Amino acid sequence: MNSSISDEPSRVAAITSELFGKQSGTVLPSLTNETTITLEGGADRRDDAAWLTFSGPATIVASSDYVRGQKFMLYELGLLSNYDIGYYLAGANWSDIAAMGAAPVALLSVVRYPSSLSDEDFNAILSGIRDACAAIGAHNVGGDIGTAERLILSATAIGAATPGQVLTRAGARPGDSLWLSGHTGIALAAMKYFSEKENRGWCLPEQTETELLDVWKRVRPEISLGSYLPTIGATSCQDTSDGLKATIAQLGNASNVDFEIDFESVPIHDAVKRVAALADVDPLTLVFGGSVDFRLLFTLPSETTAIQGLLEHHPTCVQIGHAAEATPAGAASAADLPGVAWSHQADPLALA
Amino acid sequence: MNSSISDEPSRVAAITSELFGKQSGTVLPSLTNETTITLEGGADRRDDAAWLTFSGPATIVASSDYVRGQKFMLYELGLLSNYDIGYYLAGANWSDIAAMGAAPVALLSVVRYPSSLSDEDFNAILSGIRDACAAIGAHNVGGDIGTAERLILSATAIGAATPGQVLTRAGARPGDSLWLSGHTGIALAAMKYFSEKENRGWCLPEQTETELLDVWKRVRPEISLGSYLPTIGATSCQDTSDGLKATIAQLGNASNVDFEIDFESVPIHDAVKRVAALADVDPLTLVFGGSVDFRLLFTLPSETTAIQGLLEHHPTCVQIGHAAEATPAGAASAADLPGVAWSHQADPLALA
Repeated sequence: MNSSISDEPSRVAAITSELFGKQSGTVLPSLTNETTITLEGGADRRDDAAWLTFSGPATIVASSDYVRGQKFMLYELGLLSNYDIGYYLAGANWSDIAAMGAAPVALLSVVRYPSSLSDEDFNAILSGIRDACAAIGAHNVGGDIGTAERLILSATAIGAATPGQVLTRAGARPGDSLWLSGHTGIALAAMKYFSEKENRGWCLPEQTETELLDVWKRVRPEISLGSYLPTIGATSCQDTSDGLKATIAQLGNASNVDFEIDFESVPIHDAVKRVAALADVDPLTLVFGGSVDFRLLFTLPSETTAIQGLLEHHPTCVQIGHAAEATPAGAASAADLPGVAWSHQADPLALA
Repeated sequence: MNSSISDEPSRVAAITSELFGKQSGTVLPSLTNETTITLEGGADRRDDAAWLTFSGPATIVASSDYVRGQKFMLYELGLLSNYDIGYYLAGANWSDIAAMGAAPVALLSVVRYPSSLSDEDFNAILSGIRDACAAIGAHNVGGDIGTAERLILSATAIGAATPGQVLTRAGARPGDSLWLSGHTGIALAAMKYFSEKENRGWCLPEQTETELLDVWKRVRPEISLGSYLPTIGATSCQDTSDGLKATIAQLGNASNVDFEIDFESVPIHDAVKRVAALADVDPLTLVFGGSVDFRLLFTLPSETTAIQGLLEHHPTCVQIGHAAEATPAGAASAADLPGVAWSHQADPLALA
């Protein structure tokens, strides 16, 4: 570690130039043949802002997520590295872009850190951000880097879609089928397991522990599925970052429908079953609870002919229910789903 | 204060719906006749992201600024309200868009707060953000709202420009004249004065105190000037959010020129003179130091015929020097400017 790099301006110049150099001038993948996107000024330009030129019509999609300390229980337990939380920050933000059916374009990241953070740790956080962007063909184009009294991470993801092709929460209609893109509950099971492992003498096989941590270490936003869904007429979509129960309630509310869930069809990951057994709870409390698995929940029209294609391209998707006319009882039935819907006030480990 | 509103989901719904309702569908002012910008999904849609459709070619400009606790000395002293810091957060972010010569489009804001924050204070912060955006014709279209262990504020501003019209830091050439859009040093003078006022028995007239606080309470990003500068051939631009000394050094570095400063022409606000007299320092240490006044520093070609027009439309602009060929001594001469260039490490009140 070179102490001359550790002062902030030199650190920013030396480390970020290495990590984010040569972006400017890149032509980015676009959803449409009509419009080219060029990253004219990226993080390497170190100007007042980044700038991107769209050669023709485009819908720009933008979302910000702060990564809360509380969510980083596993970081505080030493199970996630600085690289992992950088990766998580970017992945969590990209998940919102995926949920809109948009293509990833550019990320802005806020990384504020205590003066005690080493160059190595700083580099690891930024490398995680860079790699999470690179994994989906996007770039971290700037943001705000500097000191603060503790580690603060926030980001804004910007995506692009063909005008008219954005996927909102508000389009589900009675009769539509309700789909989930993969397992949920793993992230909550990981928190439950690792926070109580030592006190309760729990010990799962190494492979299961790896699977539990993986959803935290490598958020895989459903970019490919998200951009596929508008092409098959999906009527609504949301990511499950608030957990499946809260997502079902929010999607139903935005679309003004009730969702009837076929519990038999809801996928339960083996690692979730194992943690539920240890904790002596119904696995569905983990599957539906406040678990940040970043899957997509979406609806398809009842008359769709696209299911075979969907399952060929995205084989982890599963139908878990359907939409019905909204009734006053509907909100109550959503509240009756297993698990505790995530909220800022709730104990993140609450299961019932 | 209604305690039933204070739980986070209800608070978000009740307060933000009131503040940010009816945005969706708004057609935004655009820099160009060619391209219309429509805010299709704003904060009122409460979807996974906000979305804006550009009907034709556009350059999108985006920048993020976290507002550091340390900068809020005057908030901690009770001299800035929650409304004021919301206003500051938005204004500081818009200043970067102004510096790129872009038109404001949409802001995303991260407002995380301790559970103890009252609904009234929460409303005040968001109202400040809303009003700072409204003052320049923009909207706060979303972001991330929720609890955290303390108040955390961050935002991302998105602007738009006609392709090819973005104003960067990198275009100044030897011979160009160097301009400043107005007074600097007031923000630093305010910090100096109010932090030592009681201990040192300082007492300035009420009007002067109001002027000192005003630059913190109502950041006025130079949107109008910024979008005018590309039309008169300005060659480079940067906002003075790091203070004038640091901005001169950064603009010179990005453009590979040295700037020769005509100290006689640098404007000194009366309030700055008064604080400098009390503190027994050269007023220029305040004018050049780490003062977040959010003015623009820019260059014009020597052969420009636009100065009369500039001064008619923006009469506070003043030429403070010119660009010369970069020399090894240049960097040293920039370092010899009065004041202490802002950095994350420096004491924010350091004057020499």
